[in-house]
Amino acid sequence: MFEAPYLLFLGDAPDALAAKMAQGIYDWRPEAVAGQFRMEECGADLGIKDLSIKEAAEAGVKTLVIGVVNRGGIISEGWKSILVEALEAGMDIASGLHTLLRDQPELVEAAEKNDCSLHDVRIPTVKYPIANGKNRSGKRCLAVGTDCSVGKMYTTLAMDREMKKQGRKSTFRATGQTGILIEGNGVPLDAVIADFMAGSVEYITPDNDADHWDFIEGQGSLFHASYSGVTMALIHGGQPDALILCHEPTRETMRGLPDYTLPSLEELREMVMPIAKVVNPDCKAVACSINTQHMSEDEALTYLAEVEKQMGIPAVDPFRQGAERLIEALG
Amino acid sequence: MFEAPYLLFLGDAPDALAAKMAQGIYDWRPEAVAGQFRMEECGADLGIKDLSIKEAAEAGVKTLVIGVVNRGGIISEGWKSILVEALEAGMDIASGLHTLLRDQPELVEAAEKNDCSLHDVRIPTVKYPIANGKNRSGKRCLAVGTDCSVGKMYTTLAMDREMKKQGRKSTFRATGQTGILIEGNGVPLDAVIADFMAGSVEYITPDNDADHWDFIEGQGSLFHASYSGVTMALIHGGQPDALILCHEPTRETMRGLPDYTLPSLEELREMVMPIAKVVNPDCKAVACSINTQHMSEDEALTYLAEVEKQMGIPAVDPFRQGAERLIEALG
Repeated sequence: MFEAPYLLFLGDAPDALAAKMAQGIYDWRPEAVAGQFRMEECGADLGIKDLSIKEAAEAGVKTLVIGVVNRGGIISEGWKSILVEALEAGMDIASGLHTLLRDQPELVEAAEKNDCSLHDVRIPTVKYPIANGKNRSGKRCLAVGTDCSVGKMYTTLAMDREMKKQGRKSTFRATGQTGILIEGNGVPLDAVIADFMAGSVEYITPDNDADHWDFIEGQGSLFHASYSGVTMALIHGGQPDALILCHEPTRETMRGLPDYTLPSLEELREMVMPIAKVVNPDCKAVACSINTQHMSEDEALTYLAEVEKQMGIPAVDPFRQGAERLIEALG
Repeated sequence: MFEAPYLLFLGDAPDALAAKMAQGIYDWRPEAVAGQFRMEECGADLGIKDLSIKEAAEAGVKTLVIGVVNRGGIISEGWKSILVEALEAGMDIASGLHTLLRDQPELVEAAEKNDCSLHDVRIPTVKYPIANGKNRSGKRCLAVGTDCSVGKMYTTLAMDREMKKQGRKSTFRATGQTGILIEGNGVPLDAVIADFMAGSVEYITPDNDADHWDFIEGQGSLFHASYSGVTMALIHGGQPDALILCHEPTRETMRGLPDYTLPSLEELREMVMPIAKVVNPDCKAVACSINTQHMSEDEALTYLAEVEKQMGIPAVDPFRQGAERLIEALG
């Protein structure tokens, strides 16, 4: 979808949190990042090389990626002259903001004049097919969660990285805007039209080498009333061979749904397995990935041991412990 | 969305099958239909009054509904002068065709000039909210199927009609284009953006009187790889109190998926109940609705008796037998 190397645009981010997107991209794709661009008033710093637009162009940067989020997700007036300068230097621009690059006349004009592209990663750019449910070659692993935002993206990114470290073939398949900005392509699944959801997931996880693994970023949860349809389409479109069950044990209610409590990992497994087997009778739930960030090291290790015993499969916090055992669980 | 009385436009339909949509509207809403309009070469006939555009206008027709489908779902050149005449006579036009009314300049111009509306029912017109999962007053019944096109719409229409016949409060909630043309409103769910699917179903089934039933038209199937996400959103957005399990016993493979066989009604019940209970712990699968059109009367009755025994709930073909026992099963 868009090309590295990147210049990460931190703009006038008041603090590190506002530049979380840039941090995520740098954490997961350091080799794709040439440097950062910070305005004078910027309070964030990734600790990497500061480049002016001119220096970035000379360093061969292909895409300026907007890595800062402000209130309302808008493209602030103060950024525009810099973004125009980048387009005039021949760079593309990629953004996951709510406000679209394509709706800014001065950016559209500069992009056209310089034959550059504006990538709004929230908007699907492909005319996706309707899913056909056909068996595909290669292996696929999908993260499913007891709730939204429990660590599904982190889990699949960590597994993809570990797999590559071991010299094995794998690809991270992004299904949300952050994942797309990290990987440079993917499907913004929550913005796809209902009829084409499963088809879009088939589209991004095509036939592959028999020993190649796709690590598909999960979305939503089968237990989340607002987004369960998206999760369903991921399972039936992704046709996973392996599921990783993701959970955040300290959360009390479902994200955005204060009337709903989280299901247990057992309940998740019981619900998801018959659904997954509709499209792949050999699918297995191979491991649990637990987000223990709100627990002490002791609490976390005790909890992980308990889950492992109850579920009969490895339970790992890939942030604390790495993803080796998750990869091992794939067989 | 659009108003009765209707003039059903059969155009140049070569045969009854091409005018199936008009037949469906007349079957389910005869009180809304003022008459039919047939071009000279039309081979279909609903057996109701033929009206010219002028006569229809004089009879107070509010909406001309395109009830004919031709190859490619296009608006043929031959229809256009008639449609323009209808707009000039003050009628709105409603269509479920792939080709949109709004993309025909001569129709747009005539509609604007005469202050009339063009309703393309395949296109959502509402900015739907994200589902909130909150409990709503009133009762809801949803048809779920072992496959697509097994009689879910027929079942809910028949139940709504029977309920009204008994003097009880109910509403048919359309979720597809045919249902919308019949009811005059609803959500074209397969065209809604993923994030808003469940929210759109909540939107069309709002709080209601405690003794009012919504009969929600089902879509897809949890077992259909292409559309299961849409079905999921219907279950979690619709928050049903009662499910009707729909099945077509002679079908060998899933519609459009030749590699997949149909699940049994038991498998459907096992999968759907835990999903439905996420949003409504009191939800029950109250009856089976079986489409026995490809069976003889004897075969059908034997089969229905078997299903009833196996499933422990009433099994009915509402087309053969009426919907009384389905309504009874709601309690």
